[in-house]
Amino acid sequence: MAMRQQERSESTRARLMDAMIECLVERGWSGTTTTEVAQRAGVSRGAQLHHYPTRADLVVAAVAHLGAARFAETREAAAALPVGAGRTRAVLEMLAELHTGPLFRAALELLVAARTDPELHAVVAPLEAEIGRSTHRLTVELLGADESLPGVRTAVQQTLDMVRGLGIDALVSDDRTRRTALLDDWARHLDARLAAATEPPG
Amino acid sequence: MAMRQQERSESTRARLMDAMIECLVERGWSGTTTTEVAQRAGVSRGAQLHHYPTRADLVVAAVAHLGAARFAETREAAAALPVGAGRTRAVLEMLAELHTGPLFRAALELLVAARTDPELHAVVAPLEAEIGRSTHRLTVELLGADESLPGVRTAVQQTLDMVRGLGIDALVSDDRTRRTALLDDWARHLDARLAAATEPPG
Repeated sequence: MAMRQQERSESTRARLMDAMIECLVERGWSGTTTTEVAQRAGVSRGAQLHHYPTRADLVVAAVAHLGAARFAETREAAAALPVGAGRTRAVLEMLAELHTGPLFRAALELLVAARTDPELHAVVAPLEAEIGRSTHRLTVELLGADESLPGVRTAVQQTLDMVRGLGIDALVSDDRTRRTALLDDWARHLDARLAAATEPPG
Repeated sequence: MAMRQQERSESTRARLMDAMIECLVERGWSGTTTTEVAQRAGVSRGAQLHHYPTRADLVVAAVAHLGAARFAETREAAAALPVGAGRTRAVLEMLAELHTGPLFRAALELLVAARTDPELHAVVAPLEAEIGRSTHRLTVELLGADESLPGVRTAVQQTLDMVRGLGIDALVSDDRTRRTALLDDWARHLDARLAAATEPPG
């Protein structure tokens, strides 16, 4: 019985988190109410308040959960990538997808709302920092980059800031041709920098 | 008399636009009401509605006006920059300032709100496209870059996406040390890329 109760709680939380992300991506933070999220999830207000006392509690749990899921999916998909030529470009494509999809959009809604809402800021700032660190770790791992070599960490940071910028560009107009050309070029540039970092100092 | 009336109208519009930006940066789009903007500007509701019938009309005018002012200021400040060594790094600093200041924050509020609001989207998409083109033109001009050379246009786009990403990073945590190191490094790479583009093909 204890087990079944625990399973029910997990399923309730999962439905609430999924409904929160759906609502956030469709309507934005200002258009997202806990009442609508509970309705979408098919969960009573009492059960919702039991698991997540505030809208901020629920959204932070939901975005953290989505982040963990998307990073795991990306890691799994990357296992099928070739090693060597073309890998860097494929990794950049995966990063661009992460930054034009629901995770980036949900996280951006929160960032922008947190900028002018001190209570939300207190919970969103650590969440965004954690997502930033996880994205960085994932990128280093997928590129097979060695951050102990000079310049490598900075090149990875530049790559991530660039794809964040591409995510902004894609919010109201999605220019895939421009993005493809930009990433093709950056893949060559990044490969050259990573290769130069491994050369012994002459 | 006609002249004085025109001057009064211009002053009313300027006060409304300034108050709109102030409100947008302090409270975000969802916290910005036309009533509060009129109060801050010290303008009657009637006069406000005469000049800007909707909140969207006023915000689009205000952000376009701020953009033009900030681009002109940046151009003027850049006239004092040295030509040659250090110029690229100084231009990157100006771009980073543009993307961590009120113009970027106001434009981002609108982009994020427009994502989930079709009426706002209709007016914000052309505005954002125009700001994007103006920022690109300004960057090319300040760098003294020749976009007819291969790779130059792409390097400028990468630079701008990178500073947009830095603008996002700065929303909830302002890590100036990281940004400085990143831009120092990118200035060297960008200079190398611009120099390589001018070399005749060997």
